Amino acid sequence: MAIPEVVRKPPFNITRASHVYLTVRDLDASRRFYTEILGLVVSAQEGGTLYLRGIEEACHHSLVLRQDDAPPACDAVGMRVTDAEELALAEDHFARAGITARRVERPYENGTLRVTFDDRSPPVELCAGMPLLPRLLNDYPAQKGGRALRLDHYQCVVPDVDATAAHFMALGFRPSKFTTSVETGQIVSIFLHRKNNPHDIVLAQGGGPRLHHFCYIVSDLAALLRACDVAASFGLGRNVEHGIGRHGPPNGVFAYLRDPDGHRIELGLPPMQYMDAEERANTWDSNQGQALIPWGALPPQRWREEASSFAGVDAGEAPAARWLPQV
Amino acid sequence: MAIPEVVRKPPFNITRASHVYLTVRDLDASRRFYTEILGLVVSAQEGGTLYLRGIEEACHHSLVLRQDDAPPACDAVGMRVTDAEELALAEDHFARAGITARRVERPYENGTLRVTFDDRSPPVELCAGMPLLPRLLNDYPAQKGGRALRLDHYQCVVPDVDATAAHFMALGFRPSKFTTSVETGQIVSIFLHRKNNPHDIVLAQGGGPRLHHFCYIVSDLAALLRACDVAASFGLGRNVEHGIGRHGPPNGVFAYLRDPDGHRIELGLPPMQYMDAEERANTWDSNQGQALIPWGALPPQRWREEASSFAGVDAGEAPAARWLPQV
Amino acid sequence: MAIPEVVRKPPFNITRASHVYLTVRDLDASRRFYTEILGLVVSAQEGGTLYLRGIEEACHHSLVLRQDDAPPACDAVGMRVTDAEELALAEDHFARAGITARRVERPYENGTLRVTFDDRSPPVELCAGMPLLPRLLNDYPAQKGGRALRLDHYQCVVPDVDATAAHFMALGFRPSKFTTSVETGQIVSIFLHRKNNPHDIVLAQGGGPRLHHFCYIVSDLAALLRACDVAASFGLGRNVEHGIGRHGPPNGVFAYLRDPDGHRIELGLPPMQYMDAEERANTWDSNQGQALIPWGALPPQRWREEASSFAGVDAGEAPAARWLPQV
Amino acid sequence: MAIPEVVRKPPFNITRASHVYLTVRDLDASRRFYTEILGLVVSAQEGGTLYLRGIEEACHHSLVLRQDDAPPACDAVGMRVTDAEELALAEDHFARAGITARRVERPYENGTLRVTFDDRSPPVELCAGMPLLPRLLNDYPAQKGGRALRLDHYQCVVPDVDATAAHFMALGFRPSKFTTSVETGQIVSIFLHRKNNPHDIVLAQGGGPRLHHFCYIVSDLAALLRACDVAASFGLGRNVEHGIGRHGPPNGVFAYLRDPDGHRIELGLPPMQYMDAEERANTWDSNQGQALIPWGALPPQRWREEASSFAGVDAGEAPAARWLPQV
Repeated sequence: MAIPEVVRKPPFNITRASHVYLTVRDLDASRRFYTEILGLVVSAQEGGTLYLRGIEEACHHSLVLRQDDAPPACDAVGMRVTDAEELALAEDHFARAGITARRVERPYENGTLRVTFDDRSPPVELCAGMPLLPRLLNDYPAQKGGRALRLDHYQCVVPDVDATAAHFMALGFRPSKFTTSVETGQIVSIFLHRKNNPHDIVLAQGGGPRLHHFCYIVSDLAALLRACDVAASFGLGRNVEHGIGRHGPPNGVFAYLRDPDGHRIELGLPPMQYMDAEERANTWDSNQGQALIPWGALPPQRWREEASSFAGVDAGEAPAARWLPQV
Repeated sequence: MAIPEVVRKPPFNITRASHVYLTVRDLDASRRFYTEILGLVVSAQEGGTLYLRGIEEACHHSLVLRQDDAPPACDAVGMRVTDAEELALAEDHFARAGITARRVERPYENGTLRVTFDDRSPPVELCAGMPLLPRLLNDYPAQKGGRALRLDHYQCVVPDVDATAAHFMALGFRPSKFTTSVETGQIVSIFLHRKNNPHDIVLAQGGGPRLHHFCYIVSDLAALLRACDVAASFGLGRNVEHGIGRHGPPNGVFAYLRDPDGHRIELGLPPMQYMDAEERANTWDSNQGQALIPWGALPPQRWREEASSFAGVDAGEAPAARWLPQV
Repeated sequence: MAIPEVVRKPPFNITRASHVYLTVRDLDASRRFYTEILGLVVSAQEGGTLYLRGIEEACHHSLVLRQDDAPPACDAVGMRVTDAEELALAEDHFARAGITARRVERPYENGTLRVTFDDRSPPVELCAGMPLLPRLLNDYPAQKGGRALRLDHYQCVVPDVDATAAHFMALGFRPSKFTTSVETGQIVSIFLHRKNNPHDIVLAQGGGPRLHHFCYIVSDLAALLRACDVAASFGLGRNVEHGIGRHGPPNGVFAYLRDPDGHRIELGLPPMQYMDAEERANTWDSNQGQALIPWGALPPQRWREEASSFAGVDAGEAPAARWLPQV
Repeated sequence: MAIPEVVRKPPFNITRASHVYLTVRDLDASRRFYTEILGLVVSAQEGGTLYLRGIEEACHHSLVLRQDDAPPACDAVGMRVTDAEELALAEDHFARAGITARRVERPYENGTLRVTFDDRSPPVELCAGMPLLPRLLNDYPAQKGGRALRLDHYQCVVPDVDATAAHFMALGFRPSKFTTSVETGQIVSIFLHRKNNPHDIVLAQGGGPRLHHFCYIVSDLAALLRACDVAASFGLGRNVEHGIGRHGPPNGVFAYLRDPDGHRIELGLPPMQYMDAEERANTWDSNQGQALIPWGALPPQRWREEASSFAGVDAGEAPAARWLPQV
């Protein structure tokens, strides 16, 4: 199956992956994890909901944690459109296209549209803006753990990557890398982006939709190491699931951590720039799986198989990751 | 004087600062400097012209050096538009606006428009695309010196920052930071961007137009240190003019080097993301000059005063930098 | 079993772990591995023997590779005594103590005494001095890969740690850390040092004697990462066996690599200082094994079981590592 | 004048530079500076005296600050001998040698001998041991600022380097580097060491004796940068007097800070190992002064001229530093 053509003039302007909504069982434990180990800062805590942002982020939140006794889940992945005008265009577009999209009320968001493409794709919330808070990038004495800078992207496991990718590419997302199955020709993983680096959302084949991980950028190797070291100080050393290691192109340096509810976070070094119209996507096939991690240990089985459910979405029984070859 | 309103729907789409054209007197010496110390890679060398790119860049060149016996100068700063269609829109726009813009032939560029706003602003070349070459980001054994990743921005000294900034803001550039004179209210420096970090072009007040510096991003502090160390190994240790140090917001970490002809290069760590429509520019006044360098030594006088001329443009007699307060 | 008393006035002065003798099957492949990936520099190559040193080392060699068609092995681990006078004292001491020690001829060594404590301990060569070569610490342009600085320590697997440790402690070695079996009370591993950090030789329980690894210090995380990246560029990414990760006290940061013959090298960040007479050894028991790697993946089975034989020494059939608990 | 022969069998065993006694005018301000910016930890505070240590240090203190209304001064530089037995040997030695040495009472020291060589050399206190406290190297969440690891060395300005160096070399100190005046042949600076890196005490020519600086080791460039960044956050950015930069051999990377009383601290990356008997000292002459800082800005005048007085010692009127050539 071929990758669709890139849509150069999309119906409205999604600018970037911007936030994630999760449920957790113990908000105090989660707050400690995200503020002490990752170094996120608290923008607000109200009732059972905690709003967090990275130290360079001015927008109100990039991670929202809601305490819930139900099994931990992801409520939605969030994307930004430029402003209210673009959100209105989005609403019109989805109405015309016959895609379910409804306005929802989200605190600290200046207009939110929840989009459900189908029952095999992740629910997406488009947000038109947020209140601004001070960037804390140069409040050095207050910075903790990994000093996470900003949300960069998230990865979802979906049963039909071709179909889900087509939904996003119709909105102007552009592939920077994809891997096809040597057996079926189908896409087993694809990196899609709107902002100027290789990834806003990554899709990988498996039982889903589920959220595999979301990624915060940290400044340097020392910050990556510090996050892991602090995790160990809090008795959560085994929550560092994979890394410190290197990805194949686009060559990210990573550590993957699991939060107290098992949600997976990638901490990554600043990514490359990827933005010119003529740039080519990196293409792989499924025989090249080993090169996804060009050196060191390959991901453990739990990294391949486990992922967060989306609240209220039946992800079926299939294991999460058929997309990473056994190597 | 007030900053103009941001133009949300510009007449054509400039995407980023993308390249710089310089003349040098000894191409061999310059080649050694840029490849061994900065770690740029050679895309082509033809006759007396050398085309260089950073190790993560796929587009053909971000720095072009032409041997010339005349005093070293900058021919133009280069910007990218999305593609040929946008370049045609640009051509129409400038014709309507009464701004001098003419097609020029530049090897390895898929269409180039040279724009002369006025005799006090830098000449800009808009490029519609370039041939692609392999990214060398993961050719680790071949990487040298600072392993410079990509061109990020350039800074020009101009006599009337308000006037020159207005030209760029009319094309959709948006300010991320500006400093006003407490005496006159005029802008003494402004950071303008199109891509999603705080700077594509920085304008600062002084005799000009001149090119103060252009900036390549390096991966980390070790790469920054290595570039300086290798400079010393080549007997050019005093060409490290300022740094390693820290800028005030947006908080870059820098080293400034002078090439064999005196052209100034900043090497900087990966910058913050700055892209949401509601984000506010950082505003300063000229009494806060010391905070431009929040710790350590302030720039030496030559950093304040010296800059590269633009070829064929009379920059007058005024010193280059009145924009940095004496502190 | 108790650790012996530290001998404060040893019979002669061993100053540090200083070199390792290995055999390899393909000297060209080994030379490429050690110079391109680790960044060692060649001091001499004669016949089938290659002498290497780290970029900050002035003494002639810290690693000697001899081509041999026999299965790869370690000929000896090398230690320094102050000078020829101390080597003569050593010779007298071993004669009196009834320990086998004989003078051997080693090129580029100013007197060498080969000591065989017993058939369960590693053969040790004491060296009285070496010719000096320039330190290449500031020849920045020539540095490659991990830019390995200097040999720091080696770890041997031995069947009776108590017995072998007693041999070294009688020569003035002092423990900085040891782990005892909760079942038998025996030592399962011990760090012993003469120079002022925690380790010159580490002993761990298992079938042996065998050489588990030797460790070179690298300057920083960037150098550690570079060594791994370059290994992948040479198609040896899976030779990065474990890491980048953190050890428990004394808190080293490491990557373990296997050379083309399977010899294991640790690259480690600069260790802590450990030298004052009143400092206490860090004591563990075998239930604390998990904390040896406080976060991230535990070592793979091959790291636990595989080690280099000592040439001509029968290490028996037992697996190399019973000393690391299954966790 | 020639460097004396190295004394291979000194009369007693000094092991390392271990601590510094300073007076300060505002203990609260100093405590904040040293704990928040450098990241030292408090071992004890009693009356007007504060005892600090680095995060990897087990011995009770490496820096002692005593509040005093008199002009800030250094009471003594401290060195370690192995133990009480060696301190007794030291006492005997100085008695025989006619050098003033008397026992003094210092809290948290297991025996202290204060040595006054002459009125042109720094007063030295030899300490036989200290109570142990936990190393805080892996208490990652508690670490602050530069996370200073351990005291490494100190530099004193003295009027007659040859004479003062002779005092220390008679006690077994060994030169790793020295610079001689091309005019007079006299030593203008010398690095002397007992532990296994190039420096425990550095002597440089100028009006004195005065304490030019003392140096703490930090783990990496990120820690060095963090210390400077935090200094700026506390409004002390201009207290970063010089750096981040590189020294010539032995190639240290440094930042120099001034504390609230003007005492100067160097933060440096982990130094090279220097310990083998046959290693040669690096020799320079005063024409090579520029290479002391192989790239970037040279030290400002205040770095050359200002230094801390020793309490009760008349350092005369001469400027502190004639030893660094004007370049």
